[in-house]
Amino acid sequence: QRSIKPVKGTGRHLRTGSSSKIIRKALTEEKQVSTKTSAADLVTETDHFVENLIISVLKEKFPSHRFIAEESTAAGSKCVLTDSPTWIIDPVDGTCNFVHRFPTVAVSIGFAVNKELEFGVIYHCTEERLYTGRRGQGAFCNDKRLQVSKETDISKALILTEIGPKRDPATLKLFLGNIERLLKAQAHGVRVIGSSTLALCHLASGAADAYYQFGLHCWDLAAATVIIREAGGTVIDTSGGPLDLMSCRVIAAGTREMAMFIAQEIQTIPYRRDDEN
Amino acid sequence: QRSIKPVKGTGRHLRTGSSSKIIRKALTEEKQVSTKTSAADLVTETDHFVENLIISVLKEKFPSHRFIAEESTAAGSKCVLTDSPTWIIDPVDGTCNFVHRFPTVAVSIGFAVNKELEFGVIYHCTEERLYTGRRGQGAFCNDKRLQVSKETDISKALILTEIGPKRDPATLKLFLGNIERLLKAQAHGVRVIGSSTLALCHLASGAADAYYQFGLHCWDLAAATVIIREAGGTVIDTSGGPLDLMSCRVIAAGTREMAMFIAQEIQTIPYRRDDEN
Repeated sequence: QRSIKPVKGTGRHLRTGSSSKIIRKALTEEKQVSTKTSAADLVTETDHFVENLIISVLKEKFPSHRFIAEESTAAGSKCVLTDSPTWIIDPVDGTCNFVHRFPTVAVSIGFAVNKELEFGVIYHCTEERLYTGRRGQGAFCNDKRLQVSKETDISKALILTEIGPKRDPATLKLFLGNIERLLKAQAHGVRVIGSSTLALCHLASGAADAYYQFGLHCWDLAAATVIIREAGGTVIDTSGGPLDLMSCRVIAAGTREMAMFIAQEIQTIPYRRDDEN
Repeated sequence: QRSIKPVKGTGRHLRTGSSSKIIRKALTEEKQVSTKTSAADLVTETDHFVENLIISVLKEKFPSHRFIAEESTAAGSKCVLTDSPTWIIDPVDGTCNFVHRFPTVAVSIGFAVNKELEFGVIYHCTEERLYTGRRGQGAFCNDKRLQVSKETDISKALILTEIGPKRDPATLKLFLGNIERLLKAQAHGVRVIGSSTLALCHLASGAADAYYQFGLHCWDLAAATVIIREAGGTVIDTSGGPLDLMSCRVIAAGTREMAMFIAQEIQTIPYRRDDEN
């Protein structure tokens, strides 16, 4: 039982600790917004503040562990997954939502050892939903067990995706073309909620049948991947092959059939890998 | 003060009454799903049950009033707004979400006299947020006053839209083309959450800067229009002219400048009027 402690501790920190309080308070305030890789790739003081807070708390408890985190990476830290115990952190997922006070914002913390994802914790800051998953021990939302959808038929499917940071004409054509293909295949609908992490949590809870995206990052995926797999779902590369956490692309689905259908249907949108420099 | 009673009573009914309880309970259950105008236009027993419940409660109190409601219209009732006091009801907005247990679902009730919208009440069933607006008396979410965004610059805007029920290739091209135009104009993002009514509530609360849609209905719009206007926002036709509640098209925005920009940018997707037979 010693092994389950980190996920419980991390969850408790997110639920009752300062990170979520800071984000909830900041949601109501005017924000200083800067841009990163594109005019649509936003960052605020809160992203930096929460990331530093989470890392400092974890470093104190686990001084030998490594960290991969969104804003440290943007500031030039290497984003390479080694065999060392590594925390993979998105301090504010859905920063664009956050900037607009659109209440779909989360903190995501994943943990990997020997490049294997061990557990993930995601906190929906405004709805106060805590999603957790630990390898071999199931996935939960506020202690309710999560179970993915068993749907295999695209014509009964609700699909989630996100736009991604690149907005050049060629990328937009591919992004919209993929939605068109899925709607022509008679998917019930496509949703774009502005938080990859929370979209993946909806997938884990069975509220949607598939999720795909190009241009998301390892910190969007790490925690959610454990949660989805523990809820019975599939997380793979957009090629249909195994997930590569650093490849910035993913398909997640309740069933392998649904994931493979999406893989065959969508066209690749090129993005740089997270571990490229 | 006599005049404010209906909105308070309606709100109380939605917050504590059976409609929202029925929807919350049904959200967790398997559903019998039928289709209406297209394979993506869904209806369940709950839509019918809640609509009948709301109408029967209101009819008892206001026997001379008229009713326009989604499922009665689908069943052949005339959808014509007269000068009589008229309740305009969507029992389950976001039926596709509801079918998938995607927790973005609302009940919407608007009220018009002399074809003028007098008040609106919208209840977010899972997050238990009650949005209310009454002409000349402001708009509120759980008693907190709502205020729209003051943004006029598209390159700082978060935009909301919905897919609509028609999914033929020409409609999809226009729908996706409109998103492309707004992203090329450097909108921060576009969100599609699967409930017109709740998207319009986000607009009213300042969490987004504009909303537009073709193919929504008067019951998606009636309550939200009062709420948005009372929160300081603009609700117009997609042509840039005055709103026509029966035209199945709308632009709502925090500012008139933003609404007019969207009107100039997007292309019309043809839909039949609600009052056409």
